[in-house]
Amino acid sequence: MIDVGIVGGSGYTGGELLRLLANHSGVKVVAVTSRKLSGKPVAFVHPHLKGIYSLNFEAASAKEVAERCDIVFTAVPHGTAMDWVPELLDAGTKVIDLSSDYRLPVDVFEKTYGTKHRAPRPAVFGLPELHPEVAKAKLVGNPGCYPTGATLAVAPLAHAGLVDRVVYDSKSGISGAGAEPTDTSHYPNMAQNVIPYKLTTHRHVPEIKQELTRLSPGIRVNFTPHVVPAVRGILTTAHVLAREDAIETLQDRAKVEEIYREFYKKAPFIRMADGVPKLSSVRGSNFCDISFEPEKGSDRLVVISAIDNLVKGASGQAIQNMNLMAGIDERTGLWTPGMAP
Amino acid sequence: MIDVGIVGGSGYTGGELLRLLANHSGVKVVAVTSRKLSGKPVAFVHPHLKGIYSLNFEAASAKEVAERCDIVFTAVPHGTAMDWVPELLDAGTKVIDLSSDYRLPVDVFEKTYGTKHRAPRPAVFGLPELHPEVAKAKLVGNPGCYPTGATLAVAPLAHAGLVDRVVYDSKSGISGAGAEPTDTSHYPNMAQNVIPYKLTTHRHVPEIKQELTRLSPGIRVNFTPHVVPAVRGILTTAHVLAREDAIETLQDRAKVEEIYREFYKKAPFIRMADGVPKLSSVRGSNFCDISFEPEKGSDRLVVISAIDNLVKGASGQAIQNMNLMAGIDERTGLWTPGMAP
Amino acid sequence: MIDVGIVGGSGYTGGELLRLLANHSGVKVVAVTSRKLSGKPVAFVHPHLKGIYSLNFEAASAKEVAERCDIVFTAVPHGTAMDWVPELLDAGTKVIDLSSDYRLPVDVFEKTYGTKHRAPRPAVFGLPELHPEVAKAKLVGNPGCYPTGATLAVAPLAHAGLVDRVVYDSKSGISGAGAEPTDTSHYPNMAQNVIPYKLTTHRHVPEIKQELTRLSPGIRVNFTPHVVPAVRGILTTAHVLAREDAIETLQDRAKVEEIYREFYKKAPFIRMADGVPKLSSVRGSNFCDISFEPEKGSDRLVVISAIDNLVKGASGQAIQNMNLMAGIDERTGLWTPGMAP
Amino acid sequence: MIDVGIVGGSGYTGGELLRLLANHSGVKVVAVTSRKLSGKPVAFVHPHLKGIYSLNFEAASAKEVAERCDIVFTAVPHGTAMDWVPELLDAGTKVIDLSSDYRLPVDVFEKTYGTKHRAPRPAVFGLPELHPEVAKAKLVGNPGCYPTGATLAVAPLAHAGLVDRVVYDSKSGISGAGAEPTDTSHYPNMAQNVIPYKLTTHRHVPEIKQELTRLSPGIRVNFTPHVVPAVRGILTTAHVLAREDAIETLQDRAKVEEIYREFYKKAPFIRMADGVPKLSSVRGSNFCDISFEPEKGSDRLVVISAIDNLVKGASGQAIQNMNLMAGIDERTGLWTPGMAP
Repeated sequence: MIDVGIVGGSGYTGGELLRLLANHSGVKVVAVTSRKLSGKPVAFVHPHLKGIYSLNFEAASAKEVAERCDIVFTAVPHGTAMDWVPELLDAGTKVIDLSSDYRLPVDVFEKTYGTKHRAPRPAVFGLPELHPEVAKAKLVGNPGCYPTGATLAVAPLAHAGLVDRVVYDSKSGISGAGAEPTDTSHYPNMAQNVIPYKLTTHRHVPEIKQELTRLSPGIRVNFTPHVVPAVRGILTTAHVLAREDAIETLQDRAKVEEIYREFYKKAPFIRMADGVPKLSSVRGSNFCDISFEPEKGSDRLVVISAIDNLVKGASGQAIQNMNLMAGIDERTGLWTPGMAP
Repeated sequence: MIDVGIVGGSGYTGGELLRLLANHSGVKVVAVTSRKLSGKPVAFVHPHLKGIYSLNFEAASAKEVAERCDIVFTAVPHGTAMDWVPELLDAGTKVIDLSSDYRLPVDVFEKTYGTKHRAPRPAVFGLPELHPEVAKAKLVGNPGCYPTGATLAVAPLAHAGLVDRVVYDSKSGISGAGAEPTDTSHYPNMAQNVIPYKLTTHRHVPEIKQELTRLSPGIRVNFTPHVVPAVRGILTTAHVLAREDAIETLQDRAKVEEIYREFYKKAPFIRMADGVPKLSSVRGSNFCDISFEPEKGSDRLVVISAIDNLVKGASGQAIQNMNLMAGIDERTGLWTPGMAP
Repeated sequence: MIDVGIVGGSGYTGGELLRLLANHSGVKVVAVTSRKLSGKPVAFVHPHLKGIYSLNFEAASAKEVAERCDIVFTAVPHGTAMDWVPELLDAGTKVIDLSSDYRLPVDVFEKTYGTKHRAPRPAVFGLPELHPEVAKAKLVGNPGCYPTGATLAVAPLAHAGLVDRVVYDSKSGISGAGAEPTDTSHYPNMAQNVIPYKLTTHRHVPEIKQELTRLSPGIRVNFTPHVVPAVRGILTTAHVLAREDAIETLQDRAKVEEIYREFYKKAPFIRMADGVPKLSSVRGSNFCDISFEPEKGSDRLVVISAIDNLVKGASGQAIQNMNLMAGIDERTGLWTPGMAP
Repeated sequence: MIDVGIVGGSGYTGGELLRLLANHSGVKVVAVTSRKLSGKPVAFVHPHLKGIYSLNFEAASAKEVAERCDIVFTAVPHGTAMDWVPELLDAGTKVIDLSSDYRLPVDVFEKTYGTKHRAPRPAVFGLPELHPEVAKAKLVGNPGCYPTGATLAVAPLAHAGLVDRVVYDSKSGISGAGAEPTDTSHYPNMAQNVIPYKLTTHRHVPEIKQELTRLSPGIRVNFTPHVVPAVRGILTTAHVLAREDAIETLQDRAKVEEIYREFYKKAPFIRMADGVPKLSSVRGSNFCDISFEPEKGSDRLVVISAIDNLVKGASGQAIQNMNLMAGIDERTGLWTPGMAP
């Protein structure tokens, strides 16, 4: 049994860790922190967990958490994780950070988030399909939700050197914005709307660029996110523009299919979809479904990926990383179908 | 031309007054107040009105508003309207109050809202289908959204003395809760949910009881409201239990139909629906659609009514009242179909 | 390992059985039939199951299915199940029928469904919280979705002899109507609407009456169903009217709470909710969440229950029944939290 | 008074023509055809129109319709309009065709729709902001919904010769697919999903190319449509890639703003939005709201447009065309704000 702790358990990613870990055979959740809700049962803010957990939130310190846990998930806002992570690591605990604090090189982080990094530490970018070295990491920076769907959609083609440019157009459920009510998440504003935002400046772009550039130096990336009237899920439309010498290859369905199959042959959570991927097929699950379609007579290939932003885009991926770090089958506790309809 | 003013124009009912009055041939909106947004164009919070109005919000006093207006709508929160209404009236302006301050007798108001009434004034309850005396009123207390749908659904039967008891089960769109984000209106909480609230104690109950009791002394009323994943609309299911001597009558569709037709023969906005009323049929319009179904071998008759909570349940009804008070056709500016689909 | 079969696996309840059984440690699904889709992989119509099952639909006969299975779920339309069940039983297989063919006495069935019953067999009504004899059944008639939520909400009070009458007002997600597109399920018709239907004549009423009358002879029941813009879930509002001698008891929260706790003390899937039950708390899970609120100065108690219509209202309950019939813990494969948000 | 007829009044665009014309001061609808619904009142399929129209559907011939009408809208499926239009024109009636039969040159039409054109006639492409010659047309081919939002978003930049390529990513409400239930429009499939379709081959692409190429020969266009969980509205994200000599210009907000203002200075229905355009701001109205955002250090400018697919994308635009053809103010009957919230 792995004893795990969750720092910051009151939000959506904390709740989702608890939901998923409830069916993980190798794990016991021994601590969940929340300063505000200390003493309250986890079901107080997560009524769906009632009867499943008898755990209460605690206001424990990093040290206290570390003492009781083999692995800790930090599910606190960016800028706060860095106040927890060093002490947890120093106490010998492995850490998977769901915030943005350990995903980027310090200079890129500071530029992107406009804040000084107070506690840099070596970390592995936790996209296990691209980073098998997760297995040996002490600290994993779990990727953002958009970068997960966007990177997985294009990585095989980038790795094959076929891509000149990707114009990403992503559509996310509003749960990605968190549990706090805002003007955007106000039902009358969100229902029956589609809301583009940070049209050219989303903070997740550096993660996407970092990963794709590693695979294909010089690749050009543009990204525009939207929220749609859905709770969960990110549907990413990647308009892939071929390198001049790769136009023919991208027109060839069989070749493209083969590139994806080969690249992901050891990745159980990547499914090549029959037909267009559906958010409902991955809802609540750790799968990333992908399909593609070349445009006849053009240099464009349209790739679609679908993930659940709270699972493969956050807590599920964190557990996948945990499994790898613990040396167990990465599917443990996650081999669950999406919830359709 | 009637010069009208709107006190409190930044919320949903204020915005809806502006939307509807934009197509009213006999009215000019000359003042819209908002302390917070003073100086900003109305399109600042109501982008759908851009290009239609060139009006700015003002921080005008009651006296300043009264000077320029023949009729004023007060669309401020309950407890605030009473700070505006007396001064407006004293200046000779007619007032239609959309808050709850002038709907109930003072004692009932104070008990219901747990607050002292600082400025009682004689007012007419602004449900024009039941209160033709609106036409001569100086001050109209525009009914709540739930009481409008609930009362109109049952009034003909109550008036005919057929009803022992009504168990109301109402389903409202979330716009009824206003433009301010809350936990309930947070999209991930509201989507795919149905949320009953104030199960036995909603503040609109006294209005319903007041109106039905006037028509049928001794009638018993129960009421439970729910919010559903919809922006606009209230669908009221009235479980009508017949008086013992009226069971047979309520089983007779033709008789019941006739009772409704007769009672509403001069009410252009009441439509007896063919089939079950749909929120989409009344969406954005001032109609109240009604149908009914007796339960064979029982004392129960199910009556369904559908209104748009922001129109017939608030701003549309206020304009209907205004038309009557101004001596013009009550349909003026409101004779618009619902927006389906 | 229990070898199970699913007759009629292409619809929502079939898909849901497969989704839930994927995480059941004691079961192997060895046959899934569909005449139309014979030869296709189950993921063909259930893309969320891709990679989880390698099973294909078959056009197998009852006999062929029975030979390979210990227990069979029949998830075919009412009127069709009776063509499968006798042969399955005769071959020694236990059967859980998700249709309405084996829920009611033959005469009530024939009157309700307007069709002759061609193959009556003794069956247990599969609401395990009220029918422990499920454990010894050869054939279980799995209850309808509405009767599950409605009966569980009121059973403890009925059993205590406190109830004169219940006026049920139920709100269901549209998945209850099945996977076949209809006018009602057409997105532009369903979104932003609330649609009451079969206002006084829903076919599930006899099941509710049967169960409550068993507990409290003479109890009166009225029922009106609605569909709301949600995929999954049934929120039942039970307007409970007390027997004259029970008014005081129903006003006493502590006593009512105790009655529920006592009645359901061995029922792991019933949770008394803190606050109003939410569909999101039970979504995808086998829980039934319940809460109540007495109306001061009245004989009315409002009880709310929330279930997932496809799980506790259908496939989850069927698996719960299977567990009991197989002599294993009823929670096996079902001890999963709801999926919120 | 202009006497108008609607051929094919039972679908969404027919219903929307009726809804909008109900508030048009210069028009009388004298005929609405539907072979299937002949004899039924229009409210039979359009219950929102009850009480507004007393008109019945007719099975009238083209000649009979023409005799009574000055202008006729053909709102029948593509391939069917061509059976009506010639006879209507020959009888001296002006025609606005909402199908795709008269939007494209015959060869392009035949290639796109894979069907022979049986009755070509000279027609004007009915995007009045780009085609003032609509005013003198006998026959107008009303544009598709996607081409309207897509073309209006980019036309000023194309006209200024600044654009190398546009990658369009459009998100449409499902009403665009019509009133007939399909698998895609089935609520459980559409809710909480985003469904890309015809990823590279949508039939509306030739219209967009035709219009943009007219303004800027050689411009490259890619287009991928999606349906989102909304009834009405199209939000178009245009990823505009600058010509090499125009990169600097597109980075200059003031210049781009000026280009749009100048281009649309006589276009009352085009609004430059403050902030990102919202579908709710244009819902039910004929407005097209537009905004843009340059990406720093890139050749990309993101332009967003929002329209109501049934109004500016279909029936509203048809009425705007009718106004111009009749020589009256193009705003007549259409100067109505969007319905928000």
